[in-house]
Amino acid sequence: MANPIEFYFDFTSPYSYLASEQIEPLAQRYGRTVAFRPTLLGAVFRISGQRPLLEIPLKGDYSRRDFARSARYANIAWQMPTVFPIATVQAARACLVLQASQPQLATAFIHGAFRAYFAQGRNIAQTGVLHEVLQEIGADAAAVLQATAEPQVKAQLKQAVDDSIARGVFGAPYVIVDGEPFWGSDRLPQVERWLATGPF
Amino acid sequence: MANPIEFYFDFTSPYSYLASEQIEPLAQRYGRTVAFRPTLLGAVFRISGQRPLLEIPLKGDYSRRDFARSARYANIAWQMPTVFPIATVQAARACLVLQASQPQLATAFIHGAFRAYFAQGRNIAQTGVLHEVLQEIGADAAAVLQATAEPQVKAQLKQAVDDSIARGVFGAPYVIVDGEPFWGSDRLPQVERWLATGPF
Repeated sequence: MANPIEFYFDFTSPYSYLASEQIEPLAQRYGRTVAFRPTLLGAVFRISGQRPLLEIPLKGDYSRRDFARSARYANIAWQMPTVFPIATVQAARACLVLQASQPQLATAFIHGAFRAYFAQGRNIAQTGVLHEVLQEIGADAAAVLQATAEPQVKAQLKQAVDDSIARGVFGAPYVIVDGEPFWGSDRLPQVERWLATGPF
Repeated sequence: MANPIEFYFDFTSPYSYLASEQIEPLAQRYGRTVAFRPTLLGAVFRISGQRPLLEIPLKGDYSRRDFARSARYANIAWQMPTVFPIATVQAARACLVLQASQPQLATAFIHGAFRAYFAQGRNIAQTGVLHEVLQEIGADAAAVLQATAEPQVKAQLKQAVDDSIARGVFGAPYVIVDGEPFWGSDRLPQVERWLATGPF
Protein backbone atom coordinates (compact mmCIF):
# COMPACT_ATOMS: atom_id res chain seq x y z
CA MET A 1 0.00 0.00 0.00
CA ALA A 2 1.48 3.34 -1.04
CA ASN A 3 1.93 6.00 1.64
CA PRO A 4 -0.81 8.58 1.93
CA ILE A 5 0.06 12.10 0.81
CA GLU A 6 0.38 14.23 3.94
CA PHE A 7 -1.38 17.57 3.57
CA TYR A 8 -0.65 20.13 6.30
CA PHE A 9 -3.03 23.09 6.27
CA ASP A 10 -4.57 25.92 8.25
CA PHE A 11 -8.18 26.91 7.63
CA THR A 12 -7.15 30.58 7.38
CA SER A 13 -4.64 29.95 4.59
CA PRO A 14 -5.92 30.89 1.11
CA TYR A 15 -3.38 28.74 -0.69
CA SER A 16 -4.28 25.83 1.58
CA TYR A 17 -7.87 26.21 0.41
CA LEU A 18 -6.82 26.29 -3.24
CA ALA A 19 -4.67 23.19 -2.79
CA SER A 20 -7.35 21.40 -0.78
CA GLU A 21 -9.59 21.57 -3.82
CA GLN A 22 -6.97 19.87 -5.99
CA ILE A 23 -5.02 17.44 -3.84
CA GLU A 24 -7.49 14.55 -3.75
CA PRO A 25 -8.05 14.20 -7.51
CA LEU A 26 -4.28 14.51 -7.93
CA ALA A 27 -3.62 11.79 -5.35
CA GLN A 28 -6.26 9.51 -6.84
CA ARG A 29 -4.64 9.69 -10.26
CA TYR A 30 -1.64 7.94 -8.70
CA GLY A 31 -3.49 5.55 -6.41
CA ARG A 32 -2.82 7.57 -3.28
CA THR A 33 -4.99 8.80 -0.45
CA VAL A 34 -4.62 12.10 1.39
CA ALA A 35 -3.95 12.42 5.12
CA PHE A 36 -5.23 15.90 6.07
CA ARG A 37 -3.25 17.36 8.97
CA PRO A 38 -4.45 20.62 10.52
CA THR A 39 -1.84 22.96 11.96
CA LEU A 40 -1.85 26.58 13.16
CA LEU A 41 0.18 29.09 11.17
CA GLY A 42 0.22 31.49 14.12
CA ALA A 43 2.31 29.01 16.10
CA VAL A 44 4.37 28.03 13.07
CA PHE A 45 5.17 31.68 12.26
CA ARG A 46 6.29 32.30 15.83
CA ILE A 47 8.97 29.66 15.30
CA SER A 48 10.01 30.84 11.87
CA GLY A 49 9.68 34.57 12.59
CA GLN A 50 7.34 35.18 9.68
CA ARG A 51 4.36 37.52 9.53
CA PRO A 52 0.92 37.11 8.02
CA LEU A 53 1.10 37.83 4.29
CA LEU A 54 -1.19 40.82 4.24
CA GLU A 55 0.87 42.62 6.89
CA ILE A 56 3.92 42.72 4.65
CA PRO A 57 4.29 46.04 2.79
CA LEU A 58 3.81 45.67 -1.01
CA LYS A 59 3.54 41.88 -0.71
CA GLY A 60 0.19 42.24 1.05
CA ASP A 61 -1.42 44.15 -1.82
CA TYR A 62 -0.01 41.71 -4.33
CA SER A 63 -1.23 38.74 -2.35
CA ARG A 64 -4.88 39.83 -2.41
CA ARG A 65 -4.67 40.00 -6.18
CA ASP A 66 -2.81 36.72 -6.41
CA PHE A 67 -5.31 34.83 -4.22
CA ALA A 68 -8.16 35.74 -6.57
CA ARG A 69 -6.21 35.23 -9.77
CA SER A 70 -4.81 31.88 -8.62
CA ALA A 71 -8.36 30.78 -7.81
CA ARG A 72 -9.57 31.80 -11.27
CA TYR A 73 -6.55 30.11 -12.83
CA ALA A 74 -7.50 26.84 -11.12
CA ASN A 75 -11.23 27.36 -11.69
CA ILE A 76 -12.02 27.40 -7.97
CA ALA A 77 -14.72 29.56 -6.36
CA TRP A 78 -13.25 32.47 -4.42
CA GLN A 79 -14.48 35.41 -2.37
CA MET A 80 -11.96 37.34 -0.28
CA PRO A 81 -13.11 37.10 3.35
CA THR A 82 -13.92 40.43 4.95
CA VAL A 83 -12.30 39.26 8.20
CA PHE A 84 -8.84 37.86 7.45
CA PRO A 85 -6.86 36.17 8.84
CA ILE A 86 -8.93 34.50 11.55
CA ALA A 87 -8.31 32.27 14.56
CA THR A 88 -8.80 28.68 13.44
CA VAL A 89 -8.19 26.86 16.71
CA GLN A 90 -11.78 25.68 17.11
CA ALA A 91 -12.12 24.63 13.48
CA ALA A 92 -8.86 22.69 13.71
CA ARG A 93 -10.03 20.99 16.92
CA ALA A 94 -13.35 20.09 15.29
CA CYS A 95 -11.38 18.55 12.44
CA LEU A 96 -9.36 16.42 14.87
CA VAL A 97 -12.50 15.36 16.74
CA LEU A 98 -14.10 14.15 13.52
CA GLN A 99 -10.94 12.47 12.27
CA ALA A 100 -10.84 10.44 15.50
CA SER A 101 -14.54 9.67 15.80
CA GLN A 102 -16.10 9.86 12.34
CA PRO A 103 -13.31 9.89 9.76
CA GLN A 104 -15.84 9.51 6.95
CA LEU A 105 -17.13 13.00 7.82
CA ALA A 106 -13.81 14.67 8.52
CA THR A 107 -12.86 15.34 4.92
CA ALA A 108 -16.33 16.69 4.13
CA PHE A 109 -15.90 19.03 7.08
CA ILE A 110 -12.51 20.23 5.83
CA HIS A 111 -13.95 21.11 2.42
CA GLY A 112 -17.10 22.54 3.96
CA ALA A 113 -15.19 24.82 6.32
CA PHE A 114 -12.73 25.98 3.66
CA ARG A 115 -15.54 26.76 1.18
CA ALA A 116 -17.63 28.50 3.84
CA TYR A 117 -14.73 30.82 4.61
CA PHE A 118 -13.19 31.39 1.19
CA ALA A 119 -16.13 31.02 -1.18
CA GLN A 120 -19.27 31.81 0.81
CA GLY A 121 -18.32 34.80 2.96
CA ARG A 122 -18.89 32.96 6.24
CA ASN A 123 -16.56 33.54 9.19
CA ILE A 124 -15.68 30.10 10.50
CA ALA A 125 -14.00 31.66 13.54
CA GLN A 126 -17.55 32.11 14.85
CA THR A 127 -18.89 29.09 16.73
CA GLY A 128 -22.33 29.61 15.20
CA VAL A 129 -20.91 29.34 11.68
CA LEU A 130 -18.90 26.24 12.59
CA HIS A 131 -22.12 24.75 13.99
CA GLU A 132 -23.84 25.33 10.65
CA VAL A 133 -20.97 23.84 8.66
CA LEU A 134 -20.94 20.75 10.89
CA GLN A 135 -24.70 20.35 10.45
CA GLU A 136 -24.41 20.73 6.70
CA ILE A 137 -22.04 17.77 6.45
CA GLY A 138 -24.27 15.64 8.65
CA ALA A 139 -22.27 15.72 11.88
CA ASP A 140 -23.68 16.08 15.38
CA ALA A 141 -22.64 19.72 15.57
CA ALA A 142 -23.34 20.25 19.25
CA ALA A 143 -21.39 17.15 20.27
CA VAL A 144 -18.39 18.02 18.11
CA LEU A 145 -18.26 21.60 19.37
CA GLN A 146 -18.57 20.43 22.94
CA ALA A 147 -15.66 18.07 22.38
CA THR A 148 -13.48 20.94 21.12
CA ALA A 149 -13.48 22.33 24.68
CA GLU A 150 -12.16 19.11 26.22
CA PRO A 151 -8.60 19.18 27.59
CA GLN A 152 -7.53 16.09 25.67
CA VAL A 153 -8.66 17.62 22.36
CA LYS A 154 -6.83 20.84 23.14
CA ALA A 155 -3.74 18.79 23.95
CA GLN A 156 -4.18 16.83 20.73
CA LEU A 157 -4.12 20.00 18.62
CA LYS A 158 -1.11 21.34 20.47
CA GLN A 159 0.64 18.05 19.76
CA ALA A 160 -0.40 18.22 16.09
CA VAL A 161 1.09 21.70 15.76
CA ASP A 162 4.31 20.65 17.49
CA ASP A 163 4.50 17.61 15.23
CA SER A 164 4.06 19.76 12.12
CA ILE A 165 6.90 22.05 13.20
CA ALA A 166 9.04 18.98 13.93
CA ARG A 167 8.35 17.84 10.36
CA GLY A 168 9.63 21.18 9.06
CA VAL A 169 6.32 22.83 8.28
CA PHE A 170 6.92 26.62 8.08
CA GLY A 171 3.89 27.58 5.99
CA ALA A 172 0.81 26.08 4.40
CA PRO A 173 -0.16 24.17 2.45
CA TYR A 174 2.78 21.88 3.08
CA VAL A 175 2.61 18.56 1.30
CA ILE A 176 4.85 15.59 2.03
CA VAL A 177 5.09 12.75 -0.49
CA ASP A 178 7.15 9.77 0.64
CA GLY A 179 9.25 12.09 2.81
CA GLU A 180 9.71 14.81 0.17
CA PRO A 181 8.32 18.22 1.22
CA PHE A 182 6.53 20.63 -1.10
CA TRP A 183 5.40 24.05 0.12
CA GLY A 184 2.63 26.01 -1.51
CA SER A 185 -0.25 25.36 -3.86
CA ASP A 186 2.05 26.28 -6.73
CA ARG A 187 4.14 23.19 -6.06
CA LEU A 188 1.31 20.81 -7.00
CA PRO A 189 2.76 20.35 -10.50
CA GLN A 190 6.00 19.17 -8.87
CA VAL A 191 3.99 16.92 -6.53
CA GLU A 192 2.37 15.42 -9.58
CA ARG A 193 5.70 14.86 -11.32
CA TRP A 194 7.04 13.22 -8.13
CA LEU A 195 4.06 10.88 -8.00
CA ALA A 196 4.31 10.08 -11.69
CA THR A 197 8.04 9.47 -11.99
CA GLY A 198 9.32 9.02 -8.47
CA PRO A 199 12.16 11.22 -7.20
CA PHE A 200 13.54 13.53 -9.91
CA MET B 1 3.35 46.71 -31.06
CA ALA B 2 2.58 44.73 -27.92
CA ASN B 3 4.19 45.88 -24.67
CA PRO B 4 7.38 44.15 -23.64
CA ILE B 5 7.15 41.84 -20.66
CA GLU B 6 8.90 43.55 -17.76
CA PHE B 7 11.18 41.19 -15.87
CA TYR B 8 12.53 42.49 -12.56
CA PHE B 9 15.36 40.43 -11.16
CA ASP B 10 18.37 40.32 -8.85
CA PHE B 11 21.45 38.32 -9.83
CA THR B 12 21.53 36.70 -6.38
CA SER B 13 17.96 35.37 -6.64
CA PRO B 14 17.76 31.65 -7.50
CA TYR B 15 14.18 31.87 -8.71
CA SER B 16 15.13 34.87 -10.87
CA TYR B 17 17.75 32.68 -12.51
CA LEU B 18 15.24 29.88 -13.10
CA ALA B 19 12.73 32.31 -14.59
CA SER B 20 15.39 34.06 -16.68
CA GLU B 21 15.96 30.78 -18.49
CA GLN B 22 12.28 30.49 -19.40
CA ILE B 23 10.90 33.99 -19.89
CA GLU B 24 12.19 34.70 -23.41
CA PRO B 25 10.86 31.55 -25.12
CA LEU B 26 7.58 32.13 -23.30
CA ALA B 27 7.40 35.76 -24.47
CA GLN B 28 8.30 34.81 -28.02
CA ARG B 29 5.45 32.32 -28.21
CA TYR B 30 3.11 35.30 -27.84
CA GLY B 31 5.01 37.81 -29.97
CA ARG B 32 6.44 39.67 -27.01
CA THR B 33 9.89 40.85 -26.08
CA VAL B 34 11.36 40.96 -22.58
CA ALA B 35 12.57 44.14 -20.85
CA PHE B 36 15.08 42.96 -18.24
CA ARG B 37 15.12 45.30 -15.24
CA PRO B 38 17.78 44.72 -12.55
CA THR B 39 16.90 45.60 -8.98
CA LEU B 40 18.48 44.91 -5.58
CA LEU B 41 16.60 42.68 -3.17
CA GLY B 42 18.57 44.05 -0.22
CA ALA B 43 16.98 47.46 -0.75
CA VAL B 44 13.59 45.96 -1.59
CA PHE B 45 13.60 43.82 1.57
CA ARG B 46 14.44 46.87 3.71
CA ILE B 47 11.18 48.43 2.51
CA SER B 48 9.08 45.30 2.93
CA GLY B 49 10.76 44.10 6.13
CA GLN B 50 11.60 40.70 4.71
CA ARG B 51 14.72 38.62 5.28
CA PRO B 52 16.84 36.54 2.91
CA LEU B 53 15.22 33.12 2.45
CA LEU B 54 18.00 31.04 3.91
CA GLU B 55 17.96 33.04 7.15
CA ILE B 56 14.40 31.98 7.92
CA PRO B 57 14.22 28.98 10.29
CA LEU B 58 12.79 25.83 8.61
CA LYS B 59 12.08 27.78 5.40
CA GLY B 60 15.80 28.11 4.74
CA ASP B 61 16.43 24.37 4.74
CA TYR B 62 13.41 23.79 2.55
CA SER B 63 14.49 26.48 0.12
CA ARG B 64 17.86 24.88 -0.62
CA ARG B 65 16.05 21.70 -1.54
CA ASP B 66 13.41 23.55 -3.53
CA PHE B 67 15.97 25.53 -5.56
CA ALA B 68 17.58 22.34 -6.79
CA ARG B 69 14.35 20.43 -7.34
CA SER B 70 12.73 23.35 -9.16
CA ALA B 71 15.78 23.54 -11.44
CA ARG B 72 15.54 19.81 -12.19
CA TYR B 73 11.79 20.15 -12.73
CA ALA B 74 12.43 22.84 -15.36
CA ASN B 75 15.47 21.04 -16.77
CA ILE B 76 17.82 23.91 -15.96
CA ALA B 77 21.44 23.49 -14.87
CA TRP B 78 21.92 24.18 -11.15
CA GLN B 79 24.73 24.19 -8.64
CA MET B 80 24.09 25.79 -5.25
CA PRO B 81 26.61 28.61 -4.85
CA THR B 82 28.99 28.17 -1.91
CA VAL B 83 28.73 31.90 -1.17
CA PHE B 84 25.07 32.91 -1.02
CA PRO B 85 23.55 35.42 -1.12
CA ILE B 86 26.02 37.89 -2.60
CA ALA B 87 26.20 41.61 -3.26
CA THR B 88 25.09 42.20 -6.84
CA VAL B 89 25.52 45.96 -7.09
CA GLN B 90 28.39 45.80 -9.56
CA ALA B 91 26.74 43.14 -11.72
CA ALA B 92 23.54 45.19 -11.81
CA ARG B 93 25.46 48.32 -12.77
CA ALA B 94 27.29 46.41 -15.51
CA CYS B 95 23.90 45.31 -16.79
CA LEU B 96 22.66 48.91 -16.93
CA VAL B 97 25.84 50.08 -18.66
CA LEU B 98 25.41 47.47 -21.38
CA GLN B 99 21.68 48.11 -21.75
CA ALA B 100 22.46 51.79 -22.40
CA SER B 101 25.51 51.33 -24.61
CA GLN B 102 25.33 47.89 -26.24
CA PRO B 103 21.82 46.51 -25.76
CA GLN B 104 22.59 43.62 -28.09
CA LEU B 105 25.09 42.36 -25.48
CA ALA B 106 23.07 43.13 -22.36
CA THR B 107 20.83 40.07 -22.48
CA ALA B 108 23.79 37.78 -23.15
CA PHE B 109 25.44 39.29 -20.09
CA ILE B 110 22.36 38.65 -17.94
CA HIS B 111 22.29 34.99 -18.91
CA GLY B 112 26.07 34.71 -18.65
CA ALA B 113 26.18 36.17 -15.16
CA PHE B 114 23.24 34.11 -13.90
CA ARG B 115 24.72 30.88 -15.27
CA ALA B 116 28.17 31.70 -13.93
CA TYR B 117 26.75 32.09 -10.43
CA PHE B 118 24.07 29.41 -10.32
CA ALA B 119 25.39 26.75 -12.69
CA GLN B 120 29.16 27.16 -12.83
CA GLY B 121 30.18 27.84 -9.23
CA ARG B 122 31.62 31.28 -10.03
CA ASN B 123 31.13 34.14 -7.57
CA ILE B 124 30.00 37.11 -9.66
CA ALA B 125 30.39 39.42 -6.66
CA GLN B 126 34.11 39.29 -7.47
CA THR B 127 35.22 41.85 -10.03
CA GLY B 128 37.57 39.36 -11.63
CA VAL B 129 34.73 36.94 -12.29
CA LEU B 130 32.54 39.71 -13.70
CA HIS B 131 35.45 40.65 -15.97
CA GLU B 132 35.58 37.09 -17.29
CA VAL B 133 31.83 36.93 -17.86
CA LEU B 134 31.92 40.24 -19.74
CA GLN B 135 34.76 38.98 -21.89
CA GLU B 136 32.96 35.74 -22.61
CA ILE B 137 29.98 37.58 -24.10
CA GLY B 138 32.24 39.79 -26.21
CA ALA B 139 32.03 43.04 -24.24
CA ASP B 140 34.90 45.40 -23.50
CA ALA B 141 35.14 44.15 -19.93
CA ALA B 142 37.56 46.80 -18.67
CA ALA B 143 35.47 49.64 -20.08
CA VAL B 144 32.21 48.29 -18.67
CA LEU B 145 33.71 47.73 -15.22
CA GLN B 146 35.24 51.18 -15.24
CA ALA B 147 31.83 52.63 -16.07
CA THR B 148 30.26 50.87 -13.08
CA ALA B 149 32.25 53.22 -10.83
CA GLU B 150 30.90 56.38 -12.45
CA PRO B 151 28.53 58.50 -10.36
CA GLN B 152 25.85 58.64 -13.06
CA VAL B 153 25.78 54.83 -13.31
CA LYS B 154 25.52 54.52 -9.55
CA ALA B 155 22.67 57.04 -9.62
CA GLN B 156 21.03 55.12 -12.45
CA LEU B 157 20.95 51.89 -10.42
CA LYS B 158 19.63 53.70 -7.38
CA GLN B 159 16.87 55.11 -9.56
CA ALA B 160 16.16 51.67 -11.03
CA VAL B 161 15.77 50.20 -7.55
CA ASP B 162 13.51 53.07 -6.44
CA ASP B 163 11.45 52.62 -9.61
CA SER B 164 11.05 48.91 -8.96
CA ILE B 165 9.78 49.57 -5.43
CA ALA B 166 7.41 52.22 -6.81
CA ARG B 167 6.07 49.54 -9.17
CA GLY B 168 5.36 47.29 -6.20
CA VAL B 169 8.30 44.91 -6.54
CA PHE B 170 8.79 43.16 -3.18
CA GLY B 171 10.69 40.09 -4.37
CA ALA B 172 12.17 38.58 -7.49
CA PRO B 173 11.55 37.55 -10.14
CA TYR B 174 8.67 39.99 -10.54
CA VAL B 175 7.08 39.98 -13.96
CA ILE B 176 4.65 42.61 -15.21
CA VAL B 177 2.50 41.89 -18.26
CA ASP B 178 0.40 44.81 -19.47
CA GLY B 179 0.27 46.16 -15.91
CA GLU B 180 -0.52 42.82 -14.26
CA PRO B 181 2.11 41.71 -11.68
CA PHE B 182 3.28 38.13 -11.20
CA TRP B 183 5.77 37.25 -8.45
CA GLY B 184 7.94 34.17 -8.56
CA SER B 185 9.13 31.69 -11.13
CA ASP B 186 6.16 29.50 -10.20
CA ARG B 187 3.80 32.11 -11.65
CA LEU B 188 5.09 31.60 -15.20
CA PRO B 189 2.15 29.30 -16.02
CA GLN B 190 -0.20 32.14 -15.05
CA VAL B 191 1.91 34.57 -17.11
CA GLU B 192 1.48 32.24 -20.06
CA ARG B 193 -2.29 32.00 -19.57
CA TRP B 194 -2.46 35.82 -19.34
CA LEU B 195 -0.55 36.17 -22.61
CA ALA B 196 -2.64 33.50 -24.30
CA THR B 197 -6.11 34.61 -23.26
CA GLY B 198 -5.75 38.15 -21.97
CA PRO B 199 -6.93 39.00 -18.44
CA PHE B 200 -8.64 36.08 -16.72
